[in-house]
Amino acid sequence: MDYTFTPIGIIHSCFKEKFGIPRQPGLVPLATAELELLPPYNREEALRGLDGFSHIWITFVFHGTMAGGWKPTVRPPRLGGNKRIGVFATRSTFRPNPIGLSAVRLTGIAKRKNGLFLELAGVDLLDQTPVLDIKPYLPYSDIIEEATGGFAPSPPEEDITVHFSGEAEAALAEREMRGGTHLRPFIVQMLGSDPAPAYRSASQNAGRSFGARVFDLDIRWEINGKALLVTAVETPGDAAGHGAGENGLDARGENGGSSGT
Amino acid sequence: MDYTFTPIGIIHSCFKEKFGIPRQPGLVPLATAELELLPPYNREEALRGLDGFSHIWITFVFHGTMAGGWKPTVRPPRLGGNKRIGVFATRSTFRPNPIGLSAVRLTGIAKRKNGLFLELAGVDLLDQTPVLDIKPYLPYSDIIEEATGGFAPSPPEEDITVHFSGEAEAALAEREMRGGTHLRPFIVQMLGSDPAPAYRSASQNAGRSFGARVFDLDIRWEINGKALLVTAVETPGDAAGHGAGENGLDARGENGGSSGT
Repeated sequence: MDYTFTPIGIIHSCFKEKFGIPRQPGLVPLATAELELLPPYNREEALRGLDGFSHIWITFVFHGTMAGGWKPTVRPPRLGGNKRIGVFATRSTFRPNPIGLSAVRLTGIAKRKNGLFLELAGVDLLDQTPVLDIKPYLPYSDIIEEATGGFAPSPPEEDITVHFSGEAEAALAEREMRGGTHLRPFIVQMLGSDPAPAYRSASQNAGRSFGARVFDLDIRWEINGKALLVTAVETPGDAAGHGAGENGLDARGENGGSSGT
Repeated sequence: MDYTFTPIGIIHSCFKEKFGIPRQPGLVPLATAELELLPPYNREEALRGLDGFSHIWITFVFHGTMAGGWKPTVRPPRLGGNKRIGVFATRSTFRPNPIGLSAVRLTGIAKRKNGLFLELAGVDLLDQTPVLDIKPYLPYSDIIEEATGGFAPSPPEEDITVHFSGEAEAALAEREMRGGTHLRPFIVQMLGSDPAPAYRSASQNAGRSFGARVFDLDIRWEINGKALLVTAVETPGDAAGHGAGENGLDARGENGGSSGT
C-alpha cells in the first residue's frame, strides 16, 4: 500500500543550488531560511505553542535529487568517498523514499500580508524544498546521550582557512553598505564546513574553480590544500567573461547536499 | 504537487493496539519490536554499516489513526488535556501528513530464512506500522545540547507504583516457566510510564478497568491515585466472563499512541 502526502510548506533558503549545502544541519549556524506554510495549513492556531521550542524537526522531500532514484549503497564523503555503505546507514539523498530530516533552529514566526512563515537558522535545505511535516525537537526524548555513532563519531574537522581576494572583499564591503549583514561570516562558516567533496585530493583541487549561488549572489572559490580563497562575490549577470565552462566554473553541483554523515 | 511513498518495511511490535503505547520512544526500554524489510529493499548491502550505530530514526506512517484526519490544534496529555496546542507544536498523530518519527535502540540485525529484520528496543510503535525510512541517529548532529523544549521540558514523572494481583503474579510466573522473560519488568515499565490519559482525574479512574494487548497477552489494570494494580495477565480467549462491556473493560483504545509531548 502506498501513501501520498501533500506538502504543508515550502522552503525559501539561502542555498539556491545543491552544491555548497552543508552536509548536515547545524554546521552553518548563519545559514537561514524561511518555511512558508501553504494553504490550508497556513493557520496560526496550528503553530500555537511552537514558539516555546528552540529547535524543530523539518521532514521534507529531497526534490533536487529524487529523479536519480535510490541506490542500495552510497559512498559518504566522510569516508573518503571510496568505501560503500548501505544507504540506510547514511543520510544520503538517494533513498528509496526521498525523505529528508533536519533539526534546525527556530528563530521566529512571522505573520505577513503574503503569508505565515517560520524563520529558521542552521539549515541544510535547498531553496524550494517541499516540507511534509514540522515537529518540535523534544530535548528529553530526542537527546540520546548514550547514542554512539558508527563511522561518523564527530563533526567534520573545521581546519579549512577561508581567505578573500581583494575583489571579493570589495564586493562584500559594498554589499554591507547596502544592508547585507552577516554575509562574510556566513561565507566563512559555509566554506569552512568543507562542502566540496572531501575525497577530492589536494592535487586535484589545485587551480580548480568552484562556485555556488547563495542568497542572490554567485560565490566562487579555489582550494589549495587547507587554504580556501574566495575569488569572487557577484550578483548574477555581472559574471560574464570570467573563464571557460559553465559560468566560468570547473565544478558545480557535485555535492548532493545533506548527503554525508 | 503530491508525493507518493512505498513502505520499505513493516513493524512487528509488542504493542498490538494503540492504547497503552508509550507517549514517546525510549520511555519503555524493554518494549521491543522487529522491523522487517520488504522487497525489493530487503538487501543486506542496504544495511551495511548500520550495525555501528546504537540508535536509528524510524520514519513511519500513523496507520492506526490516519483515517481520523488532522486537527489544527490538539490537547496534549502532558498539559492536562485541557489546553489546546497547535498540531505542529506536538508529536500528535493527527497531523496533515500522518508521518511519525521515533528514535529507537538498534539491538541487532537478523537475517533469517523468512526475511531480513532489524531488532529494536524502546519502541513506541504499533504492530503492523508501515515504515518509510531508516536513518542512523548521528550523535554529533542529532544531540542538540542547547535545545529548549517548550511545554514539555522533562520526561513524564514516573511516580506511579505498579502492583500485581495474586492472579496476575501467578500467570506471570507460569509464563516465565514457559520461557517468557522480562515480561514482568516490561509491564512495570510500560504502565509506570502512565499510558493512561494523564488528565483523567483520580476520582474518575477509581474502580475503572483498563486493558491492552501486548505481545500475545491481554493485560488488565486498575488505577487508584498513584497506585496501579495489574489485575490480570491472560492469553486471549481465557478472558470470558470477567465483567461487562467489551472484554470486560471500561476503557480501551483511548490513547492515540505517540500523541503526547
